[in-house]
Amino acid sequence: TIDADRFRRSFEAYSEIGATENDGLHRLALSDADATARDRFVDDLQALDLAVTIDEMGNVFGRREGTDPDADPVLIGSHLDSQPRGGRYDGQLGVLVALETLRALDDHGIETTRPVEIVNWTNEEGSRFENPMLGSGVFTDNVDLEEAYDLRDGDGVRFVDELERIGYRGETSCEPRSIHAFLELHVEQGPTLEERGTPVGIVEGVFGMAWLEATIEGRADHAGPTPMHARSDALAAAAAAIDEIEALPGRLSEDAVATVGRLDVEPNSVNVIPSRAEFTIDVRSYDDATVEAAIDRASAEVEAASDRVGADASVSELWRIPHTEFSSRVCDAAATAAEAVDADAERVVSGAGHDAKYLNDVTDAAMLFVPSADGITHNEAEFTPWDDCVAGARTFAEATRRLAA
Amino acid sequence: TIDADRFRRSFEAYSEIGATENDGLHRLALSDADATARDRFVDDLQALDLAVTIDEMGNVFGRREGTDPDADPVLIGSHLDSQPRGGRYDGQLGVLVALETLRALDDHGIETTRPVEIVNWTNEEGSRFENPMLGSGVFTDNVDLEEAYDLRDGDGVRFVDELERIGYRGETSCEPRSIHAFLELHVEQGPTLEERGTPVGIVEGVFGMAWLEATIEGRADHAGPTPMHARSDALAAAAAAIDEIEALPGRLSEDAVATVGRLDVEPNSVNVIPSRAEFTIDVRSYDDATVEAAIDRASAEVEAASDRVGADASVSELWRIPHTEFSSRVCDAAATAAEAVDADAERVVSGAGHDAKYLNDVTDAAMLFVPSADGITHNEAEFTPWDDCVAGARTFAEATRRLAA
Ligand SMILES: NC(=O)NCCC(=O)O
Ligand SMILES: NC(=O)NCCC(=O)O
Repeated sequence: TIDADRFRRSFEAYSEIGATENDGLHRLALSDADATARDRFVDDLQALDLAVTIDEMGNVFGRREGTDPDADPVLIGSHLDSQPRGGRYDGQLGVLVALETLRALDDHGIETTRPVEIVNWTNEEGSRFENPMLGSGVFTDNVDLEEAYDLRDGDGVRFVDELERIGYRGETSCEPRSIHAFLELHVEQGPTLEERGTPVGIVEGVFGMAWLEATIEGRADHAGPTPMHARSDALAAAAAAIDEIEALPGRLSEDAVATVGRLDVEPNSVNVIPSRAEFTIDVRSYDDATVEAAIDRASAEVEAASDRVGADASVSELWRIPHTEFSSRVCDAAATAAEAVDADAERVVSGAGHDAKYLNDVTDAAMLFVPSADGITHNEAEFTPWDDCVAGARTFAEATRRLAA
Repeated sequence: TIDADRFRRSFEAYSEIGATENDGLHRLALSDADATARDRFVDDLQALDLAVTIDEMGNVFGRREGTDPDADPVLIGSHLDSQPRGGRYDGQLGVLVALETLRALDDHGIETTRPVEIVNWTNEEGSRFENPMLGSGVFTDNVDLEEAYDLRDGDGVRFVDELERIGYRGETSCEPRSIHAFLELHVEQGPTLEERGTPVGIVEGVFGMAWLEATIEGRADHAGPTPMHARSDALAAAAAAIDEIEALPGRLSEDAVATVGRLDVEPNSVNVIPSRAEFTIDVRSYDDATVEAAIDRASAEVEAASDRVGADASVSELWRIPHTEFSSRVCDAAATAAEAVDADAERVVSGAGHDAKYLNDVTDAAMLFVPSADGITHNEAEFTPWDDCVAGARTFAEATRRLAA
C-alpha cells in the first residue's frame, strides 16, 4: 500500500513549481519552471538511490533494479510539463503516482523480478513546441530526433537550444529498447468517469487525431474607405471556415470533435483589413476514417471560405496519429489490481493523446484514468477529488508490482 | 510652383526611415523609427529657419511668419507615423507636401500676410495606441491629455513613457488656439479617384465611425475528451459573430463598412478550447444613424453568439466620432487652386479618419486627396502615381498661398 499523506505532500510541493495565482500550473516544456520541476524530480530519484539517466531528448529515467538482471523493465510515468495556465493534475499526477509507487515498494522492502523504471517524458503537451508527446515520440521512433530538435516555439526559439539551456540535453541515445510493459496514470480530462461515479478507468484505447494548420492570405487594406466588395479579408474567411468546422463533428459521428485552438491574425490592427490568418484545427475520433473525413471536410471549408473572398488558402498537417488499442495483457493486469485493492473500475477510451499511445508501438502499454471534475482540464480549475487520486495510485502501485513480479 | 525633383528626393529619403523589405513603412507611433523621422523633420524645419515648437503631445510645429503679426496662422500638415507594415504615402506624403510648400514659398520669396505653420501630428494611425488622431484629438479638446498619456500599447507600455523616451514630450501646452484654416493632403486610401481618373480630390467630409472592443469569456478545456455539447468555446462564438458582422453593412446601407481587424485568443494553444477571445469591430458610414445601428447590431451578434455557447460577452466603445462636413470656404479655396494650377479635381468624402476631422472643430478645415492605386492602403503595396502626387502638391501649395495671402 502507498502512503497517501506522503503522496499528497509530494503533489502539493510539485504544484508550487510554476503555480499560477488561481491554483493552476504554467510550466511550459523546457521553461525555467519545467527545469525546476525536473531538478526536483532528479533529486527525488537520487534520494531513492535510483540510477538516473537523461536521454538526448531530455526524458528523465530512474531505474530500480529487479532480482533478474536479464529481465526487461516495467516502465511507469507520465509528464511534468503543463499547458499555458493549465491544471495541476494533467501529467504531474501520473509522474507522482509512479514516484509514490517506487517509494511504497521500498517501504515494504518489496523486491521485484523485473527492474521498475520511472520516466518523465519531455514536451507531452505540444503546446509550446507543437508536436505533442515529443519525448516519447522520439523514444518510439515515431518522431525523428533532428526534426524534434528543429521545432520552434511561437517566439522562434529552437527546441534543442532550450533543452541545452535548461541543462537537460542528456547523453543517452533516445531510441526504442526492450521494455516489458508501460503503464501510465493520468486524469481523464473528460466527463465519463465522473458521470458514472467510477473512480478508476482502465483505458483500452486512444482516439485517432490530427492537427492541421490553415493559412489564409488575403490583402491588407483600410477598414474605412475600402468597400466591402473590394476586400480580401483573411479573418472574415477564417471566421466563416471556423464556424463550419465547429459544426463538422455533428455531421460526422457521435464521438468526433473539432477544435480551433490557436488563431493568429496579421497585422492585427483595429483599422486594417487582416491580410493573414493562421489557425490550427484539431480533429479526433476513435474511428480513423472519421478523422480522415474531418480532415478533408475542414480543408474544404477553409478553401471554400477563402475562395469567396479571393484569398489564398493552404492547409498542412502538423501531426497525426491513428487510433490505438492498448495491450489487453496490461489492461487485464490493471483490472486485476483494481479488484485487489478494492477500487471500482471500468473500461474507457481516451480522447486525449498520451505518451502511452506511442509506447504501445514498442511494448505492451495501457493506462489508468482518474476522474476530472466536470470534465474540465487544460484549465487552472482542473480538479480531481483526492480520494480518487488515492484509489488510482493504489491500483497503479498494485498493477506495477504485479507486472514486475 | 513647387520643385518636383526636390519633393521626390525628400519623399525617397523619408521613406527609408522604417522601410520594410517590400518598400513599405513600419514606423509605429513613438517607436525608434518614428523618432528618427521626427528628428529629420525638425532638422528640415530648422534648415528653413522656422520657429520650431514641440507640444506636450509630441506634435511638432514649424512657423513661418507673415507680414501681419496679429493674423491667425494657416496650419498645414499631416502625420509621420505609419501602420504596422503600412505604405509610404499614408500620412508622410501630406507632411512632405506641406514641407515642399514652405520651401517653394521661400524659393519664390513669397511673403504671406498670415503666418504659415506646418505640423506633424502624433499617433494618427491609432494602431499602436488604439485611439487614432490622438495628437490632434488633444489639440482640439476631443481627447483628454491625461487619458492620452495613459494609453498603453499591446505590450502594456504607456504612451507618455514612450513619448518621454524618444525625447518628444515638449513643453508647449497642447490645446486649441486661434487658427485661420487647416489644410491636409492625404492619399485617398479608397478606389474612387482612380476609378474616375481624377488626380485630385477635394474632400468635403469624413464618415462617422466607431471602434468597439468585444470580449468573450468561455471556458478552457481539452480539445480531445471534451464533447462538443459540453464546450464553452470563446473562439467558436467569436467566429460566428464575426461572420455575422461581415454581413451587416450589406443590410444597413450602401456606404456602410464593418471590419474586425484585431483578434486575440487565449490561451491560443492548439489542443485547448479557447477560454477568451477579444476583438475589435470598426464600423463606418457617412450617416451617423447607420453607425449607431451597426454598433447595436454588432453588439447583439456578439451577445447572441456567446449565449449559444454559454459564454459571457461584453462590448465596449473604444472610440467614436460623428461624421464631419468640412469648411466650404476651405474646400472652395482648394477648388480654385486646382483650377489655377490646371489640375483636374472633384469633390469626394473620406471613409478614413484624419487629423483634419478634429481640426475642423476648432477652425475651418478641409483636405486634398490624391488617388490610391487599386484603393490599396495600410499595406506595403500602397502606391500613388508620382504625377498625381505632384498635381496634389501643386494644388496644395497654391491653396495654402491663397489661404495665407
Ligand atoms: N493529455 C494531453 O493533453 N496530451 C496532449 C496531446 C493531446 O492533445 O491529446
Ligand atoms: N487615415 C487613417 O488611417 N487614419 C486613422 C483613422 C482611421 O482608421 O480612419
